[in-house]
Amino acid sequence: MERERVWLLDSTMRDGAQGKNISFSVEDKVEILRALDRQGIPYIEAGNPSSGPKDLLFFERARQVPLEHSKLVAFGATCRKFLAPQEDRGIAALCEAGTPAVCIFGKSWDLHVKDVLKTTLEENLRMIGETVAYLKGQGKEVLYDAEHFFDGYRQNPRYAMETVRAARDAGADWVVLCDTNGATLPSDVRRATQQVCRELGCPVGIHCHNDIGCAVAASLAAVEGGARMVQGTYVGFGERCGNANLSTVLPTLQLKMGHPCVEKEQMARLTKTARIISDVANLTLPDSMPYVGGGAFSHKAGMHVDAVHKNSRTFEHISPDLVGNKRHILISEVGGKAVLYHSIRKVDPTMPPDAPEISEVLEDVKARELRGYQYESAEASLQVLILKHLGMHRPHFKLELYRIFSEQEAGVFSTSSAICKVRVGDQYELTADEGRGPVNALDNAVRKAVTRFYPAIARVRLTDYKVRVVEQSANSASRVRVLIESTDGENVWTTVGVSHDIIRASLRAQVDSLEYKLLRDDGIL
Amino acid sequence: MERERVWLLDSTMRDGAQGKNISFSVEDKVEILRALDRQGIPYIEAGNPSSGPKDLLFFERARQVPLEHSKLVAFGATCRKFLAPQEDRGIAALCEAGTPAVCIFGKSWDLHVKDVLKTTLEENLRMIGETVAYLKGQGKEVLYDAEHFFDGYRQNPRYAMETVRAARDAGADWVVLCDTNGATLPSDVRRATQQVCRELGCPVGIHCHNDIGCAVAASLAAVEGGARMVQGTYVGFGERCGNANLSTVLPTLQLKMGHPCVEKEQMARLTKTARIISDVANLTLPDSMPYVGGGAFSHKAGMHVDAVHKNSRTFEHISPDLVGNKRHILISEVGGKAVLYHSIRKVDPTMPPDAPEISEVLEDVKARELRGYQYESAEASLQVLILKHLGMHRPHFKLELYRIFSEQEAGVFSTSSAICKVRVGDQYELTADEGRGPVNALDNAVRKAVTRFYPAIARVRLTDYKVRVVEQSANSASRVRVLIESTDGENVWTTVGVSHDIIRASLRAQVDSLEYKLLRDDGIL
Repeated sequence: MERERVWLLDSTMRDGAQGKNISFSVEDKVEILRALDRQGIPYIEAGNPSSGPKDLLFFERARQVPLEHSKLVAFGATCRKFLAPQEDRGIAALCEAGTPAVCIFGKSWDLHVKDVLKTTLEENLRMIGETVAYLKGQGKEVLYDAEHFFDGYRQNPRYAMETVRAARDAGADWVVLCDTNGATLPSDVRRATQQVCRELGCPVGIHCHNDIGCAVAASLAAVEGGARMVQGTYVGFGERCGNANLSTVLPTLQLKMGHPCVEKEQMARLTKTARIISDVANLTLPDSMPYVGGGAFSHKAGMHVDAVHKNSRTFEHISPDLVGNKRHILISEVGGKAVLYHSIRKVDPTMPPDAPEISEVLEDVKARELRGYQYESAEASLQVLILKHLGMHRPHFKLELYRIFSEQEAGVFSTSSAICKVRVGDQYELTADEGRGPVNALDNAVRKAVTRFYPAIARVRLTDYKVRVVEQSANSASRVRVLIESTDGENVWTTVGVSHDIIRASLRAQVDSLEYKLLRDDGIL
Repeated sequence: MERERVWLLDSTMRDGAQGKNISFSVEDKVEILRALDRQGIPYIEAGNPSSGPKDLLFFERARQVPLEHSKLVAFGATCRKFLAPQEDRGIAALCEAGTPAVCIFGKSWDLHVKDVLKTTLEENLRMIGETVAYLKGQGKEVLYDAEHFFDGYRQNPRYAMETVRAARDAGADWVVLCDTNGATLPSDVRRATQQVCRELGCPVGIHCHNDIGCAVAASLAAVEGGARMVQGTYVGFGERCGNANLSTVLPTLQLKMGHPCVEKEQMARLTKTARIISDVANLTLPDSMPYVGGGAFSHKAGMHVDAVHKNSRTFEHISPDLVGNKRHILISEVGGKAVLYHSIRKVDPTMPPDAPEISEVLEDVKARELRGYQYESAEASLQVLILKHLGMHRPHFKLELYRIFSEQEAGVFSTSSAICKVRVGDQYELTADEGRGPVNALDNAVRKAVTRFYPAIARVRLTDYKVRVVEQSANSASRVRVLIESTDGENVWTTVGVSHDIIRASLRAQVDSLEYKLLRDDGIL
């Protein structure tokens, strides 16, 4: 049952950035852009150029990123009242962004026109029509977001229809119906969308928020009603209760409803992309998230593991492989093995798939994951761990002791200094350094000591440092996970450390990072 | 538009307890029971008496808890194959629980009858019918849960219908259709429910899981199709992706669809009950949870905030008071003056909108945001900051100095201890404490010292601690932002601190937290 294609628009970097605790740097956005392109999301709405220099800077940077599957979309409003589009600075900024497509929003709810815009219903129609026409004249693909469409449609259906008709008549490529307050029932969304599709006869899209927990269902209902574009954010980030979660919408559309959206190989990246985006946002991906969560395909102890393998259909609505996720079964011999084998082959290409070492590494990785380790984004630490299990790792150095002193008096500058003793063979190096805070002081001291033995270490520097508390319930004694990204100017690698003590967690990640560099230089990795 | 009543069944303590990281003691369950009773949930499914002594013990204890609005439900399976109900130990345990109602599940999917039960389709019908009839004979209200109903209905609709007919014919008070694998589209749930309601003519219920993110929507669709009972868990706990979230379903049914479920005063407890249940489960209630989350009525973008002040209907689908939640205005780079004014008025309700202090605070907030502060989720720190600008803040204590020692030798346990000196007026308290890592050690020492002057501080404890690096480009000397959530058992507040030094960042957040508590106790905040 092959149905029509549905086009996805991801707004993680625009509407998603309105979410609580979310803020992206330009480089964060480039990373998300690359991940979404690889995922095959056709439209990526990446910012509002008139919101400030940060977004304009991003679009400048983004134009240098080659995209294979996606096109960039800049977001903005219709021109302001009593102004022609060509006189409006916002519209000018929108064009300056240099994207092939633009998405503009306008008002469809008469209440907003009167109470927020404070203008007439006719002037609002002019603003919509002239803006769309002007942007079409600039050669843009134009998506028109009808803000508060469903609220408007409920209270003044005639006017709501006039607004979208104005956009269509002016040449909009897509008319997108927005449930901005996020509280329209899916069945009402379906009915209204059907009506709009029938009347407009142009491509229609849907944009839902999650204030009654129905953003995904309402998006699907709109597609049932004829919509062929779904706007959302990849893992549901967004103001208040979030936007429609595309990592849920996408597989449901394609695998359950038969609407193609992405290639099969792209579908198999679904989970990975979700992890990348939440990592960049430094937010934990909820275990319970459909399709991509760590627990989405978990099975409780007591279930017959045998039966899962013989007939997984009894327990699982799809095979987790389809979306790049894993089945989690307690004491499983197969879960994750294939993935791990792939990593082991990188270290030792001759390793047979049934070698006992593979199970040994797997057990260790699982035990560590229970303690808060996460190797998904710390491949360098995983490779060092594998080498240890294969007996191929001789540590290049050993940290014998450290002492850190941090103090502050009478509100003046705090100081931190660290002593450390590093051993290589039977040689010792005891040194000290200082830094901004205890972690930095120790990091500097260890680097200094190890460089005495291995001058190549002088070229290694940290490019990113992330800390996350992995036990929510505890207090400041919580377990923390530190992820360190390092570079030697040629390669970039990430390592991980976990401990109740942030210093030890950082140290573990740092030791892995330095070992990884030395192992690579030795040709072992 | 008053419609028929819909009856809710909460299974937090049974199906919810299958969720990851969830485990309830008997006293935990009593607390949840009381909260759900006050919330007006008519059916509370509290355990499976045949699962072990813990659940039986609970039912014994629960019989002593006076319930005003709810009735207890015990859960179990139909009798086993080739066994009469009166010979089945599981059925005996179910009766022993002494609850007015019981919920039993049986198979509706022929695949499960053959592959899991390994019996004939006829024997399964006998098991259903005889079990229901036996329990009715014991004077119980009987709810029949048709497990995997929608999968069965898709593949063998005739047999699926026979199973629910067997339950109805035997006298079941409710026939509840279960989407056990959680992947049925809401529109399919509606259609099938309609069909069942038409054919059975008895009260029908719905029980959904969230594997495609549609548990709430599918429950609503079933009600549209004629179901009059919704089973779920209060904040969505449950295996894999969770169960239908009743704190979302309930207000939507009552406020959006016109089906009465609870009294108005009970609706106003909605948020409180969600907090109690997640507290008992020791899990953080997600900010983005519809209706009850801390961010469900928060506003970030300046434009939205402006509009909400003009007319809250423009960006809020209901008034937060209706469900006992509050509006939060987030301060952010895009928020601007209107947002801040709202916060200042909380501190000083007489402040005119054009007071110069507002611009002064705004400038300071902006400068701090550039350095990595973020006040949108740290309202307590913002309020302390505002007091400072208004000259209304006299610090309760001053930290004169601290010294921290962290060390580790030869890979054995690391230790951290801290000395601190706190001044109040002309009195000094110098004390020390230890902890897991330097941050925890200093946190303990400061709390200890301040408590000597202000015994109320003894009740303050940290409930969450978050660290984020706010400058991606730097190394381990990066600036970090620490967010601390504290409680004194009554209120919950969040404070923020930023520094290159994680210790200073934590300290700043901690000092704000303690000051906030003392300012509240003084009646200034």
